Amino acid sequence: MSHFKSDEALLLTTKLYIEAWLLSNRRLHNLIIKLSEEEIYKEISPERNRGIYLLGHLISTTDTMIELLGFDKKRYPELDPIFVSAPDKSGKIFPDFEVLKQNWEKINTVMLEHIENMSPEQWLEKHASVSEDDFKKDPTRNKLNVLISRTNHQNYHLGQLVLLL
Amino acid sequence: MSHFKSDEALLLTTKLYIEAWLLSNRRLHNLIIKLSEEEIYKEISPERNRGIYLLGHLISTTDTMIELLGFDKKRYPELDPIFVSAPDKSGKIFPDFEVLKQNWEKINTVMLEHIENMSPEQWLEKHASVSEDDFKKDPTRNKLNVLISRTNHQNYHLGQLVLLL
Repeated sequence: MSHFKSDEALLLTTKLYIEAWLLSNRRLHNLIIKLSEEEIYKEISPERNRGIYLLGHLISTTDTMIELLGFDKKRYPELDPIFVSAPDKSGKIFPDFEVLKQNWEKINTVMLEHIENMSPEQWLEKHASVSEDDFKKDPTRNKLNVLISRTNHQNYHLGQLVLLL
Repeated sequence: MSHFKSDEALLLTTKLYIEAWLLSNRRLHNLIIKLSEEEIYKEISPERNRGIYLLGHLISTTDTMIELLGFDKKRYPELDPIFVSAPDKSGKIFPDFEVLKQNWEKINTVMLEHIENMSPEQWLEKHASVSEDDFKKDPTRNKLNVLISRTNHQNYHLGQLVLLL
């Protein structure tokens, strides 16, 4: 390779994935703080999920990721039965939009505090829900893969939430 | 690092991203071949883009990516003024759904033929539309970054196209 050593290349490559998470997270954040109470309760398309459900779903997913990456314990486990195990309009009581916005900010702050301090080697460690044995068989079950799949998940729902504006 | 050398780590890291492109591309493909002529002409949400527009838009974007990655020349430049420079319902004549599905398959085949033969070092080379000077100033303007941003773009529109079903 002409201008990189492998370890510099690894650092650059990992950085690109971190930037991709941060970019879509910022885009989502800028959208969410722009939405009114009325807009967040709208469906993204007739008879589909409402914005408020997708917001809770994204908080829960990021909260789980924080645990999988070993950054912290899950902070809002009470959201899982409402926004992950159950579909929208399940009859379960949702927290208020203002409360969810606070949870959303908190969870993103925790991500930010940790995400940029990880070395490329740490990103390639096993994530918290795979056993040592399974990880030996399949080293792609690492922390970086969790970040990549959650970045794609974030973009998937970003494409839906923009429909509320 | 306990079980990888840097060059193996770099190979694994790059592979994760290729897999992320392929996964969302397969999900999109499985959706598109399932959609009827009637469904693809529906709007993803009232007064928003129609499925047929997003399909053309995704073909055009991938076609441009193939050129940026240096895999091949642009194959369908005539789609850009319809699906990238213009919004949906611009009055421009769209190719038939069947024709777009053929273009979609072709473009994905070209990607597949090349994407897995690239070395990690090649992914970190400059993409085709950045100058040598600008690339020296900012080595993140590489081919891997193009793939990452297009993977996120693909997931963004996948989240919208599923609303047609």
